[in-house]
Amino acid sequence: MAKELKDLTKRADNYSQWYNELVVKADLAEQSAVRGCMVIKPYGYAIWEKMQRRLDDMFKETGVQNAYFPLLIPKSFLSKEADHVKGFAKECAVVTHYRLKTDPEGKGVIVDPEAKLEEELIIRPTSETIIWNTFRNWIKSYRDLPLLINQWCNVFRWEMRTRLFLRTAEFLWQEGHTAHATAQEAQAKAEEMLNIYADFAEKCMAIPVVKGVKTANERFAGALETYTIEAMMQDGKALQSGTSHFLGQNFAKAFDVKFIDKNNKLDYVWATSWGVSTRLMGALIMTHSDDNGLVLPPALAPIQVVIVPIYKSSEQLATIDAKVAPIVENLKKRGISVKYDNADNKRPGFKFADYELKGVPVRLVLGPKDIENGTIEVMRRDTLEKQSVAFDGIEDYVAHLLDEIQANIYDKALKLRESKTYKVDTWEDFQAQIEKGGFILAPWDGTTETELKIKELTKATIRCIPMGCEDEEGKDMLTGKPSHRRVIFARNY
Amino acid sequence: MAKELKDLTKRADNYSQWYNELVVKADLAEQSAVRGCMVIKPYGYAIWEKMQRRLDDMFKETGVQNAYFPLLIPKSFLSKEADHVKGFAKECAVVTHYRLKTDPEGKGVIVDPEAKLEEELIIRPTSETIIWNTFRNWIKSYRDLPLLINQWCNVFRWEMRTRLFLRTAEFLWQEGHTAHATAQEAQAKAEEMLNIYADFAEKCMAIPVVKGVKTANERFAGALETYTIEAMMQDGKALQSGTSHFLGQNFAKAFDVKFIDKNNKLDYVWATSWGVSTRLMGALIMTHSDDNGLVLPPALAPIQVVIVPIYKSSEQLATIDAKVAPIVENLKKRGISVKYDNADNKRPGFKFADYELKGVPVRLVLGPKDIENGTIEVMRRDTLEKQSVAFDGIEDYVAHLLDEIQANIYDKALKLRESKTYKVDTWEDFQAQIEKGGFILAPWDGTTETELKIKELTKATIRCIPMGCEDEEGKDMLTGKPSHRRVIFARNY
Ligand SMILES: [Zn+2]
Ligand SMILES: [Zn+2]
Repeated sequence: MAKELKDLTKRADNYSQWYNELVVKADLAEQSAVRGCMVIKPYGYAIWEKMQRRLDDMFKETGVQNAYFPLLIPKSFLSKEADHVKGFAKECAVVTHYRLKTDPEGKGVIVDPEAKLEEELIIRPTSETIIWNTFRNWIKSYRDLPLLINQWCNVFRWEMRTRLFLRTAEFLWQEGHTAHATAQEAQAKAEEMLNIYADFAEKCMAIPVVKGVKTANERFAGALETYTIEAMMQDGKALQSGTSHFLGQNFAKAFDVKFIDKNNKLDYVWATSWGVSTRLMGALIMTHSDDNGLVLPPALAPIQVVIVPIYKSSEQLATIDAKVAPIVENLKKRGISVKYDNADNKRPGFKFADYELKGVPVRLVLGPKDIENGTIEVMRRDTLEKQSVAFDGIEDYVAHLLDEIQANIYDKALKLRESKTYKVDTWEDFQAQIEKGGFILAPWDGTTETELKIKELTKATIRCIPMGCEDEEGKDMLTGKPSHRRVIFARNY
Repeated sequence: MAKELKDLTKRADNYSQWYNELVVKADLAEQSAVRGCMVIKPYGYAIWEKMQRRLDDMFKETGVQNAYFPLLIPKSFLSKEADHVKGFAKECAVVTHYRLKTDPEGKGVIVDPEAKLEEELIIRPTSETIIWNTFRNWIKSYRDLPLLINQWCNVFRWEMRTRLFLRTAEFLWQEGHTAHATAQEAQAKAEEMLNIYADFAEKCMAIPVVKGVKTANERFAGALETYTIEAMMQDGKALQSGTSHFLGQNFAKAFDVKFIDKNNKLDYVWATSWGVSTRLMGALIMTHSDDNGLVLPPALAPIQVVIVPIYKSSEQLATIDAKVAPIVENLKKRGISVKYDNADNKRPGFKFADYELKGVPVRLVLGPKDIENGTIEVMRRDTLEKQSVAFDGIEDYVAHLLDEIQANIYDKALKLRESKTYKVDTWEDFQAQIEKGGFILAPWDGTTETELKIKELTKATIRCIPMGCEDEEGKDMLTGKPSHRRVIFARNY
């Protein structure tokens, strides 16, 4: 492992390759035998589980309930909402048969041609259609509203170019689907869920995000408004980390979901949907990690503290074991996950490199000298700083240090983003700046035409129209037409 | 709801219909637009989540780690293990295309004939093949063993006749897959996981189970030994509630997974797999529920205690609200989930019927008279008994009552099973008894031929060869050939 670690490409040399290697070397995920589909390995899955648990708690606090809807969607459902079909029909996995049979001409199995489905079924790329088809029976009156549903599941979108976590054919996600009596309430819910995503990203993942609104061109297929949180990776590229959609009455109309309001009037229901996926794993890795491997925020690290003994004799080890036992117990009591690695088949140097690679936030090392001096060596993963501190009260020290690391890596990411965010007003400056990466706040004339032209010329997309920014009159960099506010341009994952 | 409840078929009239109606009326699940696939509704999903959480904790205590493997399996993988293909190829969902396109001749979408996959992909009916194909790269030496992996996911098996939870095309489950250096260790792991299932069923679900070994004919496709837990439903039929398989080296050989042992010798790895599914929801419902609706074990009830106020004026309600607030707080502090239902748009009678239908274990009712007398009315769902008890100390009373209910419904189920378990020695008695339901302990000559003959004649299957029973010499009921122990025959779900 120590040797493998040395082979990790440096970020400065090739950021993209650094990421690809790190995901595999840190045992997070790997390619599977099925093109575009990944295997999420236990260490990667443990991080995802922590993210799931926290998000799930946050959703439930707002009254959301989990449920489960079918994996397969009748083909005809996809085309019921006009915009939706354009967005999703192209990249679907299609089930056409329901049986295999033994190949009469040899070994193995073949698809039984007699077992053809009357209507093909699509593996869900997202579940608006099947869920709104179900909601029709659940919603009759305003008393059934709001209906706040979430599901954790797998989805499938055939992708040509895939990268572990960032873009895979199958991925895991949660998709929330809510139904409301009024447009205002639905719109407010879409914004509320975006705020939850932003809170989660910032407080739990330690990733600063910009909240904003997508342009019409970048909207979810079938939405009237798409809200997004956008994070900046260390190479200055943007990563869309979560979206929340105000769907208006589009799906209610497509699936005929009406309710009787308080005035006994029949109306279509208002909708939202919102989701985050295993893509967040990519954001987590790319935001904090360094040339030595992963850097994990303590809030999501499967192992928050590792303790490694240094010893020459089994007698020395026994002494250290006895000293360490109460620390382990005390840290666990505080809800801190700790691993004491006294395995004797690996050298300390190997262990150090391995836990660095895995991003364990705090490492404690205890040797005979420390025991003499009443000290213990503390290494924090974010800065790689080592310090010898008093053994007594180490639990308190560690607890505070974990908080400090969580805060520090957030600040570091925020500073990076601030240092790579630029106001640009001319097309010339824009073209030069976009090559260097970062978020560019620039005026835009508000047309899809200009947006697409800029993308074609520079590969930069409008990440969002930031929320909470003041209007600012100006001129579009490219067309010179009037612009009323700056939007964020960037290249993106 | 009160009216709907009255419409619930009685168990004595039609047990099967009672079940089908109850699942829907209690808001647990419903049929979806996709044949054979169910929607798990929020209340049903909340129970499943509690089951998941508990099982997951139990697995992790034994060192098992979660991971995630692809939904789709290359067709050729299924036929690599000879027995496995026989068991699963018949009932697969087959993905043949990766794109839809707009129908040039009209509205809607059609499958793009040009987007045909070179090799068809199968939606996992179970994941041994894809997982062992992955394990090949994870296992090199005895130091990589044991490898203890579990995944929570959806699986798909096309079923002709489906019933909510009991038999659905898509279902949710966990599948554990472990790899070991020796046959003994793998065999022991398979038994360990069966014991965990049995513990979970008995302590958490309050369902008594028989642990046993499946006959060769009933074994999992590819296993050398299949262990099972079998539960008896109220109609005397058996429900297989969890299985654990000792797979020998079959999958290691099929996918070429070898390891270097301590003596530097190369050998194939030994395997187990084990799973429980949303089928357990069916077992839970059918074991405990009655003609008034669900009866849930407190350990799995989403709402353990409901409190309903009885009042005429808003003044009375305010008084009750104030009295109830500290009870709610105190119960929550004890980790008891409690709902105070003071909604004023439903009559108390409606609420009572609804919470009975939903199986809430304990109902508290507080009215002006109770407040005068310092009492509160307690209703326990398992026996429907009502009692007036002292208001002071009600939290303690409720906590004990929940434990008592958990124990009582287990005992009730155990007594039922005991009363419907029979020793039978002759073919005549067997034919008569099997019509009445129950578990029949009978001698069997150990051949698949006889087993199949008995199934053909009576629809009874051998549920298992019970573990921990003494050998008993006898004669097969049908063939008169020697039998060395009794096995359990029953009709089953
Ligand atoms: Zn303006
Ligand atoms: Zn014998």
